[in-house]
Amino acid sequence: MGFSFECQASCSHTQARVGLFHTPHGVVETPRFMPVGTLATVKGITPRQLKDAQAQMILANTYHLHLQPGEKIIEQAGGLHRFMAWKRPILTDSGGFQVFSLSQLRKITETGVVFRSPRDGSMIELTPEKSIQIQNALGADVIMAFDECPPADASKSELEASTDRTYRWLERCIQAHQRPQEQALFGIVQGGIHLDLRAKSARKLVALDLPGYAIGGVSVGEAPELINATVKYTTPLLPKEKPRYLMGVGTYREMVNAIASGVDLFDCVIPTRFGRHGTALVNGTRINIKNAQYREDFTPLDPTCPCYTCQNFSRAYLNHLVRSREMLGYILLSLHNITELIRFTQRIRDAIKSDRFVAEFSYWLNDY
Amino acid sequence: MGFSFECQASCSHTQARVGLFHTPHGVVETPRFMPVGTLATVKGITPRQLKDAQAQMILANTYHLHLQPGEKIIEQAGGLHRFMAWKRPILTDSGGFQVFSLSQLRKITETGVVFRSPRDGSMIELTPEKSIQIQNALGADVIMAFDECPPADASKSELEASTDRTYRWLERCIQAHQRPQEQALFGIVQGGIHLDLRAKSARKLVALDLPGYAIGGVSVGEAPELINATVKYTTPLLPKEKPRYLMGVGTYREMVNAIASGVDLFDCVIPTRFGRHGTALVNGTRINIKNAQYREDFTPLDPTCPCYTCQNFSRAYLNHLVRSREMLGYILLSLHNITELIRFTQRIRDAIKSDRFVAEFSYWLNDY
Ligand SMILES: [Zn+2]
Ligand SMILES: [Zn+2]
Repeated sequence: MGFSFECQASCSHTQARVGLFHTPHGVVETPRFMPVGTLATVKGITPRQLKDAQAQMILANTYHLHLQPGEKIIEQAGGLHRFMAWKRPILTDSGGFQVFSLSQLRKITETGVVFRSPRDGSMIELTPEKSIQIQNALGADVIMAFDECPPADASKSELEASTDRTYRWLERCIQAHQRPQEQALFGIVQGGIHLDLRAKSARKLVALDLPGYAIGGVSVGEAPELINATVKYTTPLLPKEKPRYLMGVGTYREMVNAIASGVDLFDCVIPTRFGRHGTALVNGTRINIKNAQYREDFTPLDPTCPCYTCQNFSRAYLNHLVRSREMLGYILLSLHNITELIRFTQRIRDAIKSDRFVAEFSYWLNDY
Repeated sequence: MGFSFECQASCSHTQARVGLFHTPHGVVETPRFMPVGTLATVKGITPRQLKDAQAQMILANTYHLHLQPGEKIIEQAGGLHRFMAWKRPILTDSGGFQVFSLSQLRKITETGVVFRSPRDGSMIELTPEKSIQIQNALGADVIMAFDECPPADASKSELEASTDRTYRWLERCIQAHQRPQEQALFGIVQGGIHLDLRAKSARKLVALDLPGYAIGGVSVGEAPELINATVKYTTPLLPKEKPRYLMGVGTYREMVNAIASGVDLFDCVIPTRFGRHGTALVNGTRINIKNAQYREDFTPLDPTCPCYTCQNFSRAYLNHLVRSREMLGYILLSLHNITELIRFTQRIRDAIKSDRFVAEFSYWLNDY
């Protein structure tokens, strides 16, 4: 049991690294993409299929699971792993991002956030203590600190105040955490696009010697080059011997550049959301499988892809399913997309191991 | 290659029998329930999952596949088996039932049926020749004769005229059939609830020495006891050495009684339709998994069921998924329901083998 991060190899040109993140439910090979299973299910995909897609750690959302079915039921079921039949590592977010995304209906104080339940209209309070209590009940391997997520248009002084509060909330999260042996609490570096705020936030978090660190508040609407600059500046401030997780990022280019900056873990809803909209990720591009050009295309999405979809079905069949609005179309596309992004991070992993990361991924790298 | 039906055992109290139906894509053990894959997909279920559910022969619909994607594309793909990645036997219906169910917009003549495409409003003609031509292109192991399906309230004289026409259409189907070595054409006994019409229809069909026979026009709205009486009367009129298929029937009681009359094959959309509505079939009853009583029920749907759903997930998890409208809920329920009905016919099969059919299924048997 317990947690440790082991660096196996690193790139001689960038900060990219290959690691093993040990958790109570198994090892996560980094860098790695993590599929999102908001409501204790990666949409349309069975745990068996997820395993076949080489998923190692997946995400679930505290806010959504608190509303439905409620953490009590999941705890009674024996925890999230047993409830959803996923035996490998799980990470839960803190609910902060979702609560702060709710339109109006909320009051933010030093204590926490009050919002109206979108289910039954009742008032719900989410505090650092409450978020950790829910996450302790859910029982994921990695749990996240409850952070304030300011709007994308917040001023620098608002961001500074918010980052300071997030730090005070983190201290309360650490205090509230009841299962530190079984669940690693990650702190979240905030500060928007202001590098001095990021530096201050990182410095204070590092002093707390947490089992892992996340970079939050990126990919919230800012320009891609600002995401990249923020991540490039912030990541090296985090300790080398701890896993680093860039929250909510999972596009090809952003992942490659974040890995070059030393990030290990990624999550994004793109593969299943795209799948439900008939879009396939193939070799770094997007394919709208409904297009007429695929009606008589009897080749797989990607002949080099080992996924169940590509091993068994043609683009013509997928085109037919999506045009017919058949559930299987969304399932097979989601399965391929998840496999594709995991495989992409695995290929990067292999490239770093043989120190060919920059050579093989130069197409995606912004400036090295 | 080729087709044959082999009777392995029979019940000493009823007409029930155990058989092996050999087809070019493998053997179908009868009696057996066949899942429906209307648009070349059993809704939400992958071929791999279908195989795990012990599905042997599945259905697809000629009418739907003619409209989308069109038989040309499926033929180019190498046929239906390759297109949908199902290597085991497939049966296609003739499209008759669907066309005759269309509201208005159709003209029935001796030649065939003209209807307006629900896709683009164009006029489409379906004739016995056209139906067989489409089914030859699709390439299923069993194809069905194009029959007229009169409305449930048709008079006896209308039914008689329709049954006579269906016979003339069958002769044209036989003439049009281009692949008799690879595809077995089944004739369909019609005649509504009128036993004299059924007898006449059966007698004429049997004289044609077809590779298999179906009973059509039941379960179209008549009372269950009339279904049973019709099937009980009609089935023994069909040759013992050929497979017998009762179209569109797949409820527990109707299957048991039809098997007692000598029927071998069944199909029904119930398992996936129920699955999509949150209903599970458990031990002959229906469970609405959304009900509050299952919120904290951590037992499987059926602890004796070998399906993936029952082996891995609790009723509480399924309740959560269906309440959350998560696709996985519909998938897991459909998977269980398909397994349940196939397993039910397999249990009947085992019971007939040991001549315990009446003893073990007396609860369902109407009168023996
Ligand atoms: Zn693939
Ligand atoms: Zn089951």
